Amino acid sequence: MPRFRLDIEYDGLPYAGWQRQAGQPSVQQAIEEAIKKFCGEEVSLRGAGRTDARVHATGQVAHVDLVKAWPDDTVRDALNAYLSQAGERVAILAATATSDEFDARFSAIARHYVYRIVNRRAPPALDKGKVWWVPKQLDAEAMQAAARVLLGRHDFTTFRSTQCQASSPLRTLDRLDVERMGEIIEIRASARSFLHNQVRSMVGSLKRVGEGAWTGKDLKAALDAQSRAACSQVAPPDGLFLVKVDYP
Amino acid sequence: MPRFRLDIEYDGLPYAGWQRQAGQPSVQQAIEEAIKKFCGEEVSLRGAGRTDARVHATGQVAHVDLVKAWPDDTVRDALNAYLSQAGERVAILAATATSDEFDARFSAIARHYVYRIVNRRAPPALDKGKVWWVPKQLDAEAMQAAARVLLGRHDFTTFRSTQCQASSPLRTLDRLDVERMGEIIEIRASARSFLHNQVRSMVGSLKRVGEGAWTGKDLKAALDAQSRAACSQVAPPDGLFLVKVDYP
Repeated sequence: MPRFRLDIEYDGLPYAGWQRQAGQPSVQQAIEEAIKKFCGEEVSLRGAGRTDARVHATGQVAHVDLVKAWPDDTVRDALNAYLSQAGERVAILAATATSDEFDARFSAIARHYVYRIVNRRAPPALDKGKVWWVPKQLDAEAMQAAARVLLGRHDFTTFRSTQCQASSPLRTLDRLDVERMGEIIEIRASARSFLHNQVRSMVGSLKRVGEGAWTGKDLKAALDAQSRAACSQVAPPDGLFLVKVDYP
Repeated sequence: MPRFRLDIEYDGLPYAGWQRQAGQPSVQQAIEEAIKKFCGEEVSLRGAGRTDARVHATGQVAHVDLVKAWPDDTVRDALNAYLSQAGERVAILAATATSDEFDARFSAIARHYVYRIVNRRAPPALDKGKVWWVPKQLDAEAMQAAARVLLGRHDFTTFRSTQCQASSPLRTLDRLDVERMGEIIEIRASARSFLHNQVRSMVGSLKRVGEGAWTGKDLKAALDAQSRAACSQVAPPDGLFLVKVDYP
């Protein structure tokens, strides 16, 4: 059966997350239903990142096996037509016939997330639901300096949800950069894989540094504690975007 | 009575436009009602740009006279609280006590708009309602070259709505730039003032140039015709943002 790689963009707001869940709308289900309308097949999509409720994506990747070797553009355009028709906030950026060995989840060698904070007194009117509004002035340079303590291979127990199902809390964080662009603070995080809520947990703690409540030392102590209780606030899902997944 | 300048951001989608209209939600009314909740006064706001239904703003400016000389930050924060409470998609970026001579509409010496096109096969999922989706590949360089014929002082009858109430169709266009940034094409237009639907009319015709249906010569001929019938498609409001208003 021909395998297709799908590159996907979505507005996470109306969804309970990427993954199919009984009784709740999910991105996976939206696409699986579009596929059913397109070719009548009941398929199961596998995605690279199991984004949470309200988390967005500009570069999610999934794969699916179809019976027929449709042209790539036909798959993309047909799925987009059915998704639009159903009022879904999901778009297929590209559909690409790929080898049977490609697995969107297990072949991935890096995942890249961006977290956006709007740091100003006025709440966001245009970007509502797509940024974290922090009215108190944040020191982005202090955040960037502190972020370094999280780089590399660590036990990230402090920064993972108690519901995380990964067998190990060890992860290697390759990038954690904080940059201010006017009123927007962008945090870019890259790793082979992340624990459940890891990015939002790290961002919540970096925000504590930005407002002066924590130092880089406090952040290091929280990491070293290897205890969820040591985590600061978890940042809301609204500002989080899965932007890219790398494959060999 | 102390006069305040308000700098305003809004998502135009839920509104019939800036201006108060009987029986339809407007940005002006949303702010006037917030002011009433704040200080009990029934005021009339005057805005710099009377944006149409579904048109957005990141830099609209308005002025209002209040009875009391409130601190600037109190006005901003209180209005934002009432706007949020009412579920409005409007935010007051700044409130600034100003001289009685300041008139948001008549003191303005330049208005700056940005129009955003997403030019790709896949429809927008994240930016829905905030871009014009054009699936057919556009030649942004040809658009930029053609845009030059519209610069300067002209009779813009071709590019104004038949409902435009301005006494003269003469306007001086100071800037009309087209720039591609990946899948996004941004068109920046600046003038002291614009006619009704002028930016969207110019963008619709530039898109014709981008898809190769019109040349720069055709655009010039349309301008010279001084006839609304010579205008190409009017671009949808979704991609239009009032981004800045200049004062002396």
